[in-house]
Amino acid sequence: MRTQVAIIGAGPAGLLLGHLLRAEGIEVVVVERATPDYILGRIRAGVLERTATTLMERIGIAERMRREGLPHDGFALADGDRLIRIPVTELTGHHVLVYGQTELTRDLMDTAPERGLQVIYEAADVALHDVEGDAPYVTYTKDGLAERIDAAFICGCDGFHGPSRKAIPASVGTAFEKVYPFGWLGILADVPPCDHELIYANHDRGFALASMRSATRSRYYIQVSLDEKLEDWPDDRLWDELAVRLGPEAAANLTRGPALEKSIAPLRSFVFEPMRHGRLLLAGDSAHIVPPTGAKGLNLAASDVHYLSEALVRHFKAGDQDAIGGYSQKALARVWKSERFSWQLTKLMHRFPDNDAFDRRMQLADLDYIATSRAAQTTIAENYVGLPL
Amino acid sequence: MRTQVAIIGAGPAGLLLGHLLRAEGIEVVVVERATPDYILGRIRAGVLERTATTLMERIGIAERMRREGLPHDGFALADGDRLIRIPVTELTGHHVLVYGQTELTRDLMDTAPERGLQVIYEAADVALHDVEGDAPYVTYTKDGLAERIDAAFICGCDGFHGPSRKAIPASVGTAFEKVYPFGWLGILADVPPCDHELIYANHDRGFALASMRSATRSRYYIQVSLDEKLEDWPDDRLWDELAVRLGPEAAANLTRGPALEKSIAPLRSFVFEPMRHGRLLLAGDSAHIVPPTGAKGLNLAASDVHYLSEALVRHFKAGDQDAIGGYSQKALARVWKSERFSWQLTKLMHRFPDNDAFDRRMQLADLDYIATSRAAQTTIAENYVGLPL
Repeated sequence: MRTQVAIIGAGPAGLLLGHLLRAEGIEVVVVERATPDYILGRIRAGVLERTATTLMERIGIAERMRREGLPHDGFALADGDRLIRIPVTELTGHHVLVYGQTELTRDLMDTAPERGLQVIYEAADVALHDVEGDAPYVTYTKDGLAERIDAAFICGCDGFHGPSRKAIPASVGTAFEKVYPFGWLGILADVPPCDHELIYANHDRGFALASMRSATRSRYYIQVSLDEKLEDWPDDRLWDELAVRLGPEAAANLTRGPALEKSIAPLRSFVFEPMRHGRLLLAGDSAHIVPPTGAKGLNLAASDVHYLSEALVRHFKAGDQDAIGGYSQKALARVWKSERFSWQLTKLMHRFPDNDAFDRRMQLADLDYIATSRAAQTTIAENYVGLPL
Repeated sequence: MRTQVAIIGAGPAGLLLGHLLRAEGIEVVVVERATPDYILGRIRAGVLERTATTLMERIGIAERMRREGLPHDGFALADGDRLIRIPVTELTGHHVLVYGQTELTRDLMDTAPERGLQVIYEAADVALHDVEGDAPYVTYTKDGLAERIDAAFICGCDGFHGPSRKAIPASVGTAFEKVYPFGWLGILADVPPCDHELIYANHDRGFALASMRSATRSRYYIQVSLDEKLEDWPDDRLWDELAVRLGPEAAANLTRGPALEKSIAPLRSFVFEPMRHGRLLLAGDSAHIVPPTGAKGLNLAASDVHYLSEALVRHFKAGDQDAIGGYSQKALARVWKSERFSWQLTKLMHRFPDNDAFDRRMQLADLDYIATSRAAQTTIAENYVGLPL
């Protein structure tokens, strides 16, 4: 098979990129290791900044998002008893939209056939070849048959564990990484959220987050040490812990319910440079990971895809030979800013095992400063709604 | 001897407090271990925020400060080749005043006799007694004679190493401390400064600061490891290092000259809580230390003295029995905010031996964000000119 752009990975990054290129008449094939159901079963972030919603609007797949998404004009930081509201829209003129990554991915999947976006699911043994030359190609097996896609460019949207980044020789790239000494224990439940906005809490017992997917489905998290086991956290214990950490106001409105899903995820900051090697271009989690604090993962994938689709369109439609070469630097400038925000919000809101009493006071002083400074609140708000592209 | 307020320490905190109380007709005696010349020989910070200048105006000892002080409307952060100017006055409506701590102290010393502010210099073996009771007193020896001052209150303005804080039992207070894994090597020289504003530089080789005392006297610093020795830093080597770290623009204007003074100072963050124990009240370095980054030490002493003089005046003149009790909490709220700013600016601008490649990128991303965000610049500017009292 021959195409212009082969995309590896049918998560939100790959599908969004595919749609953006198809809308410009560029030929695309997406190959994906998993089934659609597996992809839609992954629970991920649910806060979209402009970067993401603008792209959905541009490709005309925004109708359900607009109808079902919840616009949020702010969120709160809690430190024990106090709620510090960050009035995001008032400070920046923009809001965020709570709309699950799963829902956005479903919209992109459902509209793929009618837009002529070919997605090959359950492609096994996906491998990249000759990305340094002029004729790269992708191989995979499907239903036991060996297949090959020749393309002008290969886009690696296959996440942290996918084969794309690994196809770049270690001598060419540099990986930057920070692994955090704790994880997030998350619970999804069909109960109304305790607040109409998100609450990020820094409690003496550790971090907690009150979030939601809709007016009837809530998503909560607590910081746990990495050796905690799920079986030690029956629902009741988890609800009790949330009620303590989120503070009295949230606790008073906390509706408990059985877990639809419960899991522990580690936290990681990771950046791989460069994001282009020859005719291979990385986007999203394949090139960088942020801790979930601040919900930047999907939004950062969206800004990558914005820059990448722009470069590919300029290459194919305007014959601009420099477009591809500029992608990595452009994308990385924004990546590092989002990494910074996610890292800083993570450091502000979590208990770190090696922090001493002075460090703890610095966290509380930081929160106290934020509570009283419009400038400090604005720095958080402008990052939360997304820095300009 | 009997007085209303005994102040231990004739540094800027003690003298400023003494003048403020004398201006309200309160009886004060200051006891000081050292000679006036010794005190004036200490090289310290030279950037005054409103907090300090307002107090000097209020006691009418501002004439020389107004005439010789240099108003600064901004300063710069450098990261290698780039200078990021923080337009402090434009962002906050306030400027800072470059006027050496030594000069301010001299003004306070020189005017003490005419204001009836008694200062006993060269008081040896200063000791505090019965601070928990109603009749505290201070003892010392002077010219071989044992002396005693009875007072309603004792104010400890005697710095980090003085006897006042040590008079508070360990069981009553809590000390918070952070010792940094590097020091500042400083040079004072009679040469014009390389820039009319301060430059804080974060270079791959470490931090540097270009500062000044006047249009003809410069003060420069570089970060050095704690095991560096002064004899390994002849003037030429130090000037060479400054030229590299401050960046090309500053280097082009760097005027070299022989060192009037050269020394290595460690960096420390320290807070002691509470700042009141019985009838003993702490102010300035006796209760807290900040690293010199951002020049908050003297300014923080000034805000302590503001709250403390207010409390003592209300006690003595309005008979307000609660005034003294509220001092510690009021002062500490601002102390922690200044500690936060000094700590954060220190972390942003220095190379830490245990920082990895990711941490370094976070510093650079932070500087890059500051370079492009008015809100981020405003947070720095509003702390630099001093948060509201």
